[in-house]
Amino acid sequence: MNLPLGYAYASTFAGIRQVEKDDLALIVTGMPAHAAAVFTQNRVQAAPVRLCRRHLRISGGKVGAVLVNAGNANCATRTGDAVALATARAAARILQLPASQVLAASTGVIGVELDAGKIVDALPRLVAQLNTSRFDDVARAIMTTDLVPKTASAEVKLRRGTVRFAGMTKGSGMIHPQMATTLGFVMTDAQIPVAQLRTMLKRGVESSYNRLSVDGDTSTNDTLLLLANGASGVGVDPREMAKVKEAATSVMQQLAQAIARDGEGARKFVTIVVTGASSDGAAAKLARSIANSPLVKTAIAGSDPNWGRILSAAGNAGVVFDPAKSDIHMQGVLVCRQGLAAPFSEAGLKRKLDGKECEIHFRIGGRGKGTARFWTCDLTEGYIHINASYRT
Amino acid sequence: MNLPLGYAYASTFAGIRQVEKDDLALIVTGMPAHAAAVFTQNRVQAAPVRLCRRHLRISGGKVGAVLVNAGNANCATRTGDAVALATARAAARILQLPASQVLAASTGVIGVELDAGKIVDALPRLVAQLNTSRFDDVARAIMTTDLVPKTASAEVKLRRGTVRFAGMTKGSGMIHPQMATTLGFVMTDAQIPVAQLRTMLKRGVESSYNRLSVDGDTSTNDTLLLLANGASGVGVDPREMAKVKEAATSVMQQLAQAIARDGEGARKFVTIVVTGASSDGAAAKLARSIANSPLVKTAIAGSDPNWGRILSAAGNAGVVFDPAKSDIHMQGVLVCRQGLAAPFSEAGLKRKLDGKECEIHFRIGGRGKGTARFWTCDLTEGYIHINASYRT
Repeated sequence: MNLPLGYAYASTFAGIRQVEKDDLALIVTGMPAHAAAVFTQNRVQAAPVRLCRRHLRISGGKVGAVLVNAGNANCATRTGDAVALATARAAARILQLPASQVLAASTGVIGVELDAGKIVDALPRLVAQLNTSRFDDVARAIMTTDLVPKTASAEVKLRRGTVRFAGMTKGSGMIHPQMATTLGFVMTDAQIPVAQLRTMLKRGVESSYNRLSVDGDTSTNDTLLLLANGASGVGVDPREMAKVKEAATSVMQQLAQAIARDGEGARKFVTIVVTGASSDGAAAKLARSIANSPLVKTAIAGSDPNWGRILSAAGNAGVVFDPAKSDIHMQGVLVCRQGLAAPFSEAGLKRKLDGKECEIHFRIGGRGKGTARFWTCDLTEGYIHINASYRT
Repeated sequence: MNLPLGYAYASTFAGIRQVEKDDLALIVTGMPAHAAAVFTQNRVQAAPVRLCRRHLRISGGKVGAVLVNAGNANCATRTGDAVALATARAAARILQLPASQVLAASTGVIGVELDAGKIVDALPRLVAQLNTSRFDDVARAIMTTDLVPKTASAEVKLRRGTVRFAGMTKGSGMIHPQMATTLGFVMTDAQIPVAQLRTMLKRGVESSYNRLSVDGDTSTNDTLLLLANGASGVGVDPREMAKVKEAATSVMQQLAQAIARDGEGARKFVTIVVTGASSDGAAAKLARSIANSPLVKTAIAGSDPNWGRILSAAGNAGVVFDPAKSDIHMQGVLVCRQGLAAPFSEAGLKRKLDGKECEIHFRIGGRGKGTARFWTCDLTEGYIHINASYRT
């Protein structure tokens, strides 16, 4: 992975998690970056989300560092705002940055006070470890129930030189993005003005994080940051902006897919494609309803080509469409034609469904041009095991 | 159970199910009953639902018989409408009723053609078994993944005599009512005009079947019928109507609760009470969001007093409320006070959560008067086992 220039990374164990595994991480940019951000739409928002909003407003979208912890969401906590501010300020002091250029993100259990002292004490050794190559360590430090770290990158050759994108994300449960989800940090060394960066993030999220569901629960801490520090020295010509946006979207899509692949208890990665809807929004609603149906997700876990559940889930999307014009393909096999059973080999399709990837295509006949692509995973006993354990 | 007068019941095995267990049932009323009905809001609707709508329109809300089968939903089937009509007509012929006074209801697998011949062949022996006391047999014949039959009854003493209600229902998965759910048949021998019967059903459903969720999936066959044949000879004085409505609602609530208790894989029955919302509708939305959260439901399965998930689920309801004014009680124990952790004995509460009944009270401080009571169950490995099995 060719990392974007001008960023340094560090992680350490600050004692926030129960188990000894790095739980505090820092992303620093040598030259202040332009930043765009999207946050959870949950009515309950964690203290670090409030801090990010405030600091981005004060700084006009300039970011020098992002301080992240796992093991505690700092949400529904008495001292939450004070803790977020105190730790951001402490980091700003060591890094010699204005406090408003330090952002914070937290993930973990809700409703337990976060000890600022542990973070402040760990900061000197965290900063001492800052290194341009420790990107993967940060991706690992922000994991909670994740089984694998999740990173993605892209490179774009522009007229005036090459720019790089690298992103990392975490998340496995409580995944149901509404404008953003979980934690995600995407860095680029391209020179991009704040306004365009915001558009880039907004559009990218629409076709990546907002097309992802594990369990239909939206977290209180969802934060996705896009940083552009310009360290490549390469400005983006307006005619090249589409290419750069595409790279940013591609990184976000890879990250979102990685979350679905690592969904709690998941054995299968599921892609849901809807075509022929009256609009892209309607297609997304249909795809979301199919992706969120426990009956569809358990059928996939059992390699059951139970297309009736898919049709029924689509029928619950609150979208007007004609079931009698709807075709359903599973793994490329036509299982439902114009709302009725199509002849197919159940044994053959069951074998195809035993693989690690499943694609459902819900196609509505007629003149609709709306499409959507959505990612989720199957629902297995593993999800129950992980989430029914006492005080996760 | 004192059954309402004037109804007869029968069930038999017609060979629709894979296993030999009664799968065809008949409810007949000696004098044509006034009928009110609510049906699924799913965009995909089964043939028997369409037949019921048509027949109720033609007959002006008069019903003489209801023919029910389990094992096949007769939904997304090429011959569905013809099969529903042919079987209703065959029943009408034997019972000497106008075809429009026969309703049909089906439950079971979607997308498999239903063989009308099996039902028509079974009709003579079904009709031969009609008996006023075989109510429970019908309740058993309509079961699919249900573990127990579900019935409820009520008696109301009025000035002119006593009237009786008796209801039965089925359902265990694909439960997420929107105006109605699953199959439910409530019979009374009171004399009630159609218009008032409709109001009675609509109001009753709002606080019973529409306050119930197992897995957030709304079925394609949901049908709830309320029949009043007047066989008691007892008319309802307008001043007594409230009392009768209350009895009808009570029966529907008992049936809805029985479904949550028997939710697929459920070990615990969960009641969610929301108070202090801006309206009853807002309270219901909050309760529904908590009831549908897999993270809340798995936490309850694990006896985990994880109130952060409850708060987060409420935050996703799309309802404006102040988390900082929200209190949460579990089993009567205050676990979250004004959006923050309240001190409680985790070991003690965990023990209380090990029981078969769980109550969550989400209370919003302030002047809101909106309340709702909602029923669901915990989410266990059992749900996965049942639904991941090949072609359920």
